[in-house]
Amino acid sequence: MPTAQPAPLPLTDLHTALTWRYATKKYDAARKIPAASWAALEETLVLSASSYGLQPYRFYVIDDAAVRARLLPAAYGQTQVVEASHLVVFAAKQGLDETYVEHFIACVAEVRGVPADSLKGYRDTIVGDLVTGPRHAWVDHWAARQAYIALGDLLTSAALLGIDATPMEGFVPPKVDEILGLAAQGYASVVCAALGYRHADDKYAKAPKVRLPVSELIKHV
Amino acid sequence: MPTAQPAPLPLTDLHTALTWRYATKKYDAARKIPAASWAALEETLVLSASSYGLQPYRFYVIDDAAVRARLLPAAYGQTQVVEASHLVVFAAKQGLDETYVEHFIACVAEVRGVPADSLKGYRDTIVGDLVTGPRHAWVDHWAARQAYIALGDLLTSAALLGIDATPMEGFVPPKVDEILGLAAQGYASVVCAALGYRHADDKYAKAPKVRLPVSELIKHV
Repeated sequence: MPTAQPAPLPLTDLHTALTWRYATKKYDAARKIPAASWAALEETLVLSASSYGLQPYRFYVIDDAAVRARLLPAAYGQTQVVEASHLVVFAAKQGLDETYVEHFIACVAEVRGVPADSLKGYRDTIVGDLVTGPRHAWVDHWAARQAYIALGDLLTSAALLGIDATPMEGFVPPKVDEILGLAAQGYASVVCAALGYRHADDKYAKAPKVRLPVSELIKHV
Repeated sequence: MPTAQPAPLPLTDLHTALTWRYATKKYDAARKIPAASWAALEETLVLSASSYGLQPYRFYVIDDAAVRARLLPAAYGQTQVVEASHLVVFAAKQGLDETYVEHFIACVAEVRGVPADSLKGYRDTIVGDLVTGPRHAWVDHWAARQAYIALGDLLTSAALLGIDATPMEGFVPPKVDEILGLAAQGYASVVCAALGYRHADDKYAKAPKVRLPVSELIKHV
């Protein structure tokens, strides 16, 4: 059941957090994200919105230092992979099929306390769109897009909690997939995020933030 | 210049906001988002992270009621398009090319106060990856993914500000592109978001939130 409406965050707090964040290049390897904060960030991932609510992804949190060391060369040696407090590999469902949709529908039925049969129209809409419809031709890209919503949620939530983060596309997906055994599970890595606390020496923390002019990015119609 | 670190948001506030939010089906058409809050949400879009910082997207904010009425059938008649306080069409850059990269590099040079020549390595890396490299084959999907990060940022920020939102893939992109004249500008619609305030009658506000089991979504390695 949704909770009551929260007290709105002051606008200046949002501004401060979003201008404070940057793609951290160098982490303080000695600082770990407290367990309660990490649990809140995992909840952000779980509660992320997705089309139809399908959640066509998994989040691999790499706790094992040996696995992170193996991932390092697959990420072109970017040290965030081993020095950040936490590392998440976002993996998108591959070849979304009826079996996956049925599993999701069973989950909806259970949570909402209704028979799965009563959701047949919903099921058929999803299957007709993503499994047998024209979007199936690029359903793996569709799944990746959903994972990127969760990436955005995570980056914003982390900034608000005062936790640094680095979104990372700079890795070799087939190598990461192999190290984590993702193909056998029907998933493929699409993006990563390192999280933790910036090192005092990270010169990028003080670099002016570059954005295209607002007049180019936002068009009022 | 990045600002000082903000006071971290209490974990319970994040939890409350993310469990309060849901994909709003019915909006209170009489309630408008205050200008200052909307400005903060536009800033969230502008400050969104993207690969290389390229921001291969535009955000079309549809203020004109007549345009929103024309978009309604293109979105299968979903009333959020006309009843929500605000509507944003996320449009991804199509066929990212050297010209776009040069424009971005010129922007970086200006903001950082360095000659564009000094950024040649950075420029060449981007071009070699996204324009002449293997990822160019799906660069429009790549651009869409970046836009979805901004969607995630927007959804999370809105929830924290106590503003309702609806991510929407349920529309006919070519129709939306035609109504907004996007193709001539080199962009294509990939997702929309309606924002405003839930109607008291929206039964979905009280429906239990459905998520796959955490043990399926998050894998610790």
